[in-house]
Amino acid sequence: MFIVQKFGGTSVGSAQRIRAVAARVAKRVQAGDQVVVVVSAMGHSTDELVGLSQAVSSTRNNREMDALLATGEQVSTALLAMALQDLGVEAASFTGWQAGVRTEPVHGAARIEAIDPQPVRTYVDGGGVPVVAGFQGIAAGAVTTLGRGGSDTTAVALTAALKADLCEIYTDVDGVYTADPRMVATARKLTDISYEEMLELANLGTQVLHPRAVETAKRHGVNVVVRTSFADTEGTVITDMASMEGLRVVTGVAFEKEVARIALVGMPRSERQLADVFTALADSQVNVDVIVQSVVKSETVDVSFTVQEADVERTLAICERSRERIAYKELLHETGLSKISIVGAGMISNPGVAAQMFAALEAVSAQVWMVSTSEIKVSCVIDQRHLKSALDSVHESFALHQE
Amino acid sequence: MFIVQKFGGTSVGSAQRIRAVAARVAKRVQAGDQVVVVVSAMGHSTDELVGLSQAVSSTRNNREMDALLATGEQVSTALLAMALQDLGVEAASFTGWQAGVRTEPVHGAARIEAIDPQPVRTYVDGGGVPVVAGFQGIAAGAVTTLGRGGSDTTAVALTAALKADLCEIYTDVDGVYTADPRMVATARKLTDISYEEMLELANLGTQVLHPRAVETAKRHGVNVVVRTSFADTEGTVITDMASMEGLRVVTGVAFEKEVARIALVGMPRSERQLADVFTALADSQVNVDVIVQSVVKSETVDVSFTVQEADVERTLAICERSRERIAYKELLHETGLSKISIVGAGMISNPGVAAQMFAALEAVSAQVWMVSTSEIKVSCVIDQRHLKSALDSVHESFALHQE
Repeated sequence: MFIVQKFGGTSVGSAQRIRAVAARVAKRVQAGDQVVVVVSAMGHSTDELVGLSQAVSSTRNNREMDALLATGEQVSTALLAMALQDLGVEAASFTGWQAGVRTEPVHGAARIEAIDPQPVRTYVDGGGVPVVAGFQGIAAGAVTTLGRGGSDTTAVALTAALKADLCEIYTDVDGVYTADPRMVATARKLTDISYEEMLELANLGTQVLHPRAVETAKRHGVNVVVRTSFADTEGTVITDMASMEGLRVVTGVAFEKEVARIALVGMPRSERQLADVFTALADSQVNVDVIVQSVVKSETVDVSFTVQEADVERTLAICERSRERIAYKELLHETGLSKISIVGAGMISNPGVAAQMFAALEAVSAQVWMVSTSEIKVSCVIDQRHLKSALDSVHESFALHQE
Repeated sequence: MFIVQKFGGTSVGSAQRIRAVAARVAKRVQAGDQVVVVVSAMGHSTDELVGLSQAVSSTRNNREMDALLATGEQVSTALLAMALQDLGVEAASFTGWQAGVRTEPVHGAARIEAIDPQPVRTYVDGGGVPVVAGFQGIAAGAVTTLGRGGSDTTAVALTAALKADLCEIYTDVDGVYTADPRMVATARKLTDISYEEMLELANLGTQVLHPRAVETAKRHGVNVVVRTSFADTEGTVITDMASMEGLRVVTGVAFEKEVARIALVGMPRSERQLADVFTALADSQVNVDVIVQSVVKSETVDVSFTVQEADVERTLAICERSRERIAYKELLHETGLSKISIVGAGMISNPGVAAQMFAALEAVSAQVWMVSTSEIKVSCVIDQRHLKSALDSVHESFALHQE
């Protein structure tokens, strides 16, 4: 089999862990597999580099930040290649530019435009293990970085470019669960999950795999396995719906713990003014999540939306500044809320799912403040104090603890 | 003026020092000069990276060591570029490959083959300050490092490639002295010195500038100034003899403190066998310095040579292994010796210089064990206990404390 294995910062966080990763890779090579490795920077190295940059400069230059941060993966790739050679496995490190990872000419959060598979392909065909720096690429002769989720995306995109069979993402969790095991005692690890479900879960706060990496996998049809480098357990396969045996109505439950609701009450009916507010919020990097609009009287509109609790003050200030333009009557806000979501590809053809979720929430007296739905997701905003019992109730209601 | 400024690891050893270097560069830019900067890795970063490599691997792979070590200068160049931008100076970091530094395809101690000046030239012509990583280059798509004295050599070679007016080497000493000021109280800083004298001094243990960098400067006629980044004092100009006003007979006194003498006594007269020993020593990285051969009787030859004290055991073992082939009668060795040397371009036309040195040594009862001369140098091996007084006596005898 031809595999791309990706190890995150925790997995290569020390010399000892790098040796453990090398042993894991060596085992696969000795079993006859062709292996390409993608690694992140060692644990805290990125924080250290950011600290240095702040100590020399009060401003921020994205080109130089990228040049600086890219050294993190160069260190871990060289060290892992050395550790592999020490075990008798031929290996060589590849920076982003050496591995042919071309990105758009943007610093800090560049998207991969194309990967020239030739350098890595040639090396792996020669019997060696290429150790490729994740998170980085090159554009117009300058080093670029991919931003959050970058190393996972490198691994998935490289799997596609190399036409490899599988992309294994090694992380500190051992797979995708039906719910966060720290919150729901009966949470169960999934054997497989579709790209679409994984994308919803990733966007709903499940930290297993960054949405960018899932999107890239979906676009290229790359089979991804998420598993841990700290044990020899099976992980979760992320694949397309078509290749899964029967779709579950609900695959998992996700949540965001600290959510706030903002309401603009009694606005005259005009779409343009509303767009103004959300543009101003986006410009200030306030992440607006659920948006609900309802017409209460014929002439006025109420809009409520959720933001992260940490953004409440900023959001209220922005809304205050737009008071005259938007002409709302009241500005309300409420904190201490949580968002609970169910995700499942089988939901599309099962109309009673939302109703079943409301019933499960009602059973634990969790009042639903807001509802938002997509084809394979239902999200409800409830009081934070009900979150734990709501998760248990919903998990139980959809029998997620059972195979 | 168009200047290349090189700052060593001590000069960029902390965030605070990087800011100080940035301020120094900014002053020159604001005075209207065009400046290109070359930097080494931050103080202890190389040791830390070597430590990590030893923790992951018991063997040593030169390609990966180069990939690993090259990150050191990438960090310092990015940080210095940020610090310059913070002072309002347009700046960008350049790795070795980005700066067009092509080397021979050798890892660990590659020589620069050519520098394509275009990328750096374009940036400096656009009004920016390129901050170039010293010590590194590229060969066949792989990162290479230049080995000891590498960053100085990068700076000098880049000055030549760019046809810049001057190469300023900032280091922790403020220039070239007539003798080590820690040993000779009356030592005086030289205003200028010729490439040839500097080369002899560098090879004789004066640590101001690596011989490779001096050789490169001599070959391309690059004017080099050695000065300190910790004060605003004038440094020493290294230039060609022709441009100096009147050659001094003796320019400076150098020494190596710990030297050992090995003697092979009573060998049959055959050049080939002798070559064998020195080849074996070279293969084992033993650095043989002074070699003296004398014919005592008609049929046999005595050869004595010096090595560093730390290499004595290894040297004796190699000689023992060759005993049969070389057929010497006795193998002698002596430690506790030092080498003292005088260097001066004016020596060529002054035949009494060696005699004056012997007299100065005799005046402090320092017996001369070995003598070695070149056109602009006389070296004597003496007992270590006489070194301090011998340095004073020779320095005084040639009136080096006077302008």
